[in-house]
Amino acid sequence: MENSKSSPQSSVPKIVVLRWGHRPQRDVRLTTHVALTARALCASGFILSDTLDTHIQETITKITQSWGGKFYFEMGTSWKKVVREWRISGGVVVHLTAYGENIQTSDILNRIKKTNKDLLLIVGAQKVPGEFYSSEVSDFNISIGNQPHSECSALAIFLDRYFEGKELDRPFKKAKIEIVPKERGKQIKSNIDFF
Amino acid sequence: MENSKSSPQSSVPKIVVLRWGHRPQRDVRLTTHVALTARALCASGFILSDTLDTHIQETITKITQSWGGKFYFEMGTSWKKVVREWRISGGVVVHLTAYGENIQTSDILNRIKKTNKDLLLIVGAQKVPGEFYSSEVSDFNISIGNQPHSECSALAIFLDRYFEGKELDRPFKKAKIEIVPKERGKQIKSNIDFF
Repeated sequence: MENSKSSPQSSVPKIVVLRWGHRPQRDVRLTTHVALTARALCASGFILSDTLDTHIQETITKITQSWGGKFYFEMGTSWKKVVREWRISGGVVVHLTAYGENIQTSDILNRIKKTNKDLLLIVGAQKVPGEFYSSEVSDFNISIGNQPHSECSALAIFLDRYFEGKELDRPFKKAKIEIVPKERGKQIKSNIDFF
Repeated sequence: MENSKSSPQSSVPKIVVLRWGHRPQRDVRLTTHVALTARALCASGFILSDTLDTHIQETITKITQSWGGKFYFEMGTSWKKVVREWRISGGVVVHLTAYGENIQTSDILNRIKKTNKDLLLIVGAQKVPGEFYSSEVSDFNISIGNQPHSECSALAIFLDRYFEGKELDRPFKKAKIEIVPKERGKQIKSNIDFF
């Protein structure tokens, strides 16, 4: 990766993922995957709302220290406070849900992009409160298909389409280690100077 | 969903996901999400190799019975047997790995599509054997970006790009329940006749 490349964030609004309904024992691995997906696919940060999970925080912090890039992690804040402040500061709230307008068959992604505003992306871990669907909380309810699957997958496809694939060619500044993509085998490049 | 619509499978090669390295206690939810992603995004089936997990089998079977479509689930078969037979029958083996050729920065997806053959997509749950990268096992090693994230997310983006989004507009035949996509709220349509 070349650090001179511009990141998608520099030209488009930023996206922050809010994970709601996380259950510390039960959801630890899935929520970690959701946070890693957010980071790898160019979101700017991750908020674990209404609860604490230091295990996930440590994992994400370590990954960012080794693999580079800027990615902030916040936890414990109430979702109501996050949403309220996001809206006050002019941002848009998008709720990822299997019940929303289909990203493929509707024009919802274009409408979201046209706002040209920072996005707070709500990703539920369990059945969400009904108010999430209302205009008091969400500006958009978007579905990645209308079949049951995975919040990880839904988030990944949303980010891939929103950033039009550019997030997968993104530089991660100050990375200590990088993968060198290869047809065969595994190659890792270390960027640590030993002097 | 209209059952008269043609499915992507009718015009393009089929994709079957092989999940390797599943640990029944530890990975049950993630592997379930991988299987649900495969089903929702138009893969034809899922093979849980080298191990049994009846909990996942039951979940996937129930989802398919309620939400429709054809999706087969197999478990316990050794990955070597699956790969050998897949190749003998003329299929191509694709290994999803963070170390492979980047789907965004290389032409690997086009090369895979150009084979016009059925794909066995290997998705690892833990560190995979070195031979997975070799030409004896995989025809292609493809990465969805080269950052650590989630096999769920990687699979989702691969399928979304391979099927060019059409999988999200796909009909699921004989569905007992369907979501009606909506701007606000939740709507489910039941297709069960009560007479």
